[in-house]
Amino acid sequence: MGNPTAAMLVIGDEILSGRTRDANMHFLAGELVKHGIRLAEVRIVPDIEPRIVEALNALRAGHDTVFTSGGIGPTHDDITADAVAKAFGVGIDVREDARALMQDYCDRMGRDLNEARLRMARIPDGASLIENPISAAPGFRIGNVCVMAGVPSIFQAMVAGVLPTLTGGDALLSQSLTLQRAEGDIAGALRGLAEAFPGLSIGSYPFVRDGVYGTNVVIRGTDGARIDAAMGQLSALFPEAVA
Amino acid sequence: MGNPTAAMLVIGDEILSGRTRDANMHFLAGELVKHGIRLAEVRIVPDIEPRIVEALNALRAGHDTVFTSGGIGPTHDDITADAVAKAFGVGIDVREDARALMQDYCDRMGRDLNEARLRMARIPDGASLIENPISAAPGFRIGNVCVMAGVPSIFQAMVAGVLPTLTGGDALLSQSLTLQRAEGDIAGALRGLAEAFPGLSIGSYPFVRDGVYGTNVVIRGTDGARIDAAMGQLSALFPEAVA
Repeated sequence: MGNPTAAMLVIGDEILSGRTRDANMHFLAGELVKHGIRLAEVRIVPDIEPRIVEALNALRAGHDTVFTSGGIGPTHDDITADAVAKAFGVGIDVREDARALMQDYCDRMGRDLNEARLRMARIPDGASLIENPISAAPGFRIGNVCVMAGVPSIFQAMVAGVLPTLTGGDALLSQSLTLQRAEGDIAGALRGLAEAFPGLSIGSYPFVRDGVYGTNVVIRGTDGARIDAAMGQLSALFPEAVA
Repeated sequence: MGNPTAAMLVIGDEILSGRTRDANMHFLAGELVKHGIRLAEVRIVPDIEPRIVEALNALRAGHDTVFTSGGIGPTHDDITADAVAKAFGVGIDVREDARALMQDYCDRMGRDLNEARLRMARIPDGASLIENPISAAPGFRIGNVCVMAGVPSIFQAMVAGVLPTLTGGDALLSQSLTLQRAEGDIAGALRGLAEAFPGLSIGSYPFVRDGVYGTNVVIRGTDGARIDAAMGQLSALFPEAVA
């Protein structure tokens, strides 16, 4: 598939420690599909600067766009902005436009723009800001990297702002069919289907429900007519097994 | 923290496409914590052999143990076992002990051990089998890599079998406290706490509930008494804010 690719870098001890179950990756994956961008890799690393720098440099070299989530808050363990500056070899400091956004928000909320909050106005040189309509502290974009908050509601708002500015590809379409057959009984047919439709990706996901073995088959691609044709062929092969 | 480290490699178009929300990573992270092993990195790659080989070689060089999930089923897109063999530079073929497990299971279930199912008995040279108490097709362990199924119930059963055989470390303990304070208002205090307790990891996770801004503070480490002390100091700093 010739679609643009994206990668995601999740900076988060809270996911690696098992405390939180990822939500941002799942959200981003779904949004990218609609936009015709293929999420091609995800890495999750802890809040350790060299690990963030190394992963970011690998991902930004290999993909059209990289999204990061997490680590841009006000506390001592929020080190993403510094790590990004280091990865790009640029300086970082409090920037006036970001500071003004924070000041305005703090004024409205009756909060103090203290030293901790001011950390959130530190932006790597050459970056453009990504709007945070929820709590003002901006994300930013530098090169092909979009740096976003880890709090899901803010992450989602930032994705909504960024996505329309990215070059999408043909919509990534999918259809699925649930067959009441064990995966091992349909594997041969699926291989044949994959060979007959080389432009499509054919995935199968086995399950057991009420003691019955079944398989969800998902056919993905950008050519809706070909997906229809492959789906038609699949259901014709197992007419009595379609759930 | 001097605990052993682990990494996880998720092989799964179904997660990258947004179809499925990860469950195995979250489960594994929680189990490793109990066992005193620190999950230090996760990568999610698509069902593409060179991507699996590259990620696996990077992870197995950097961590004590690597767990993979997904891609060991019977279909054409189940290429994990071959990719692992390639990463280790060893051969792979149907192995008699794995074939016998599959044959026994198929006999009991009245299934045909067809060519597709026989793929699941292909084991890289030098690997040992990981038992699958649910559907027989084994995982395997080669070097420091444990290769496991992606179906969550089977993944979990395999983890339960493997974990007792791994060297754990001191239990990774954590305590959390919910403060009814915005993260930016407690960031200075948290930094001070982190400096006073250098052996502990102090994370903060902001939230908004019913219009009230709050922060969950999580203190992690292996020294329970130190965690108690840090927690005591934190709640003394914000006595009226403890939710």
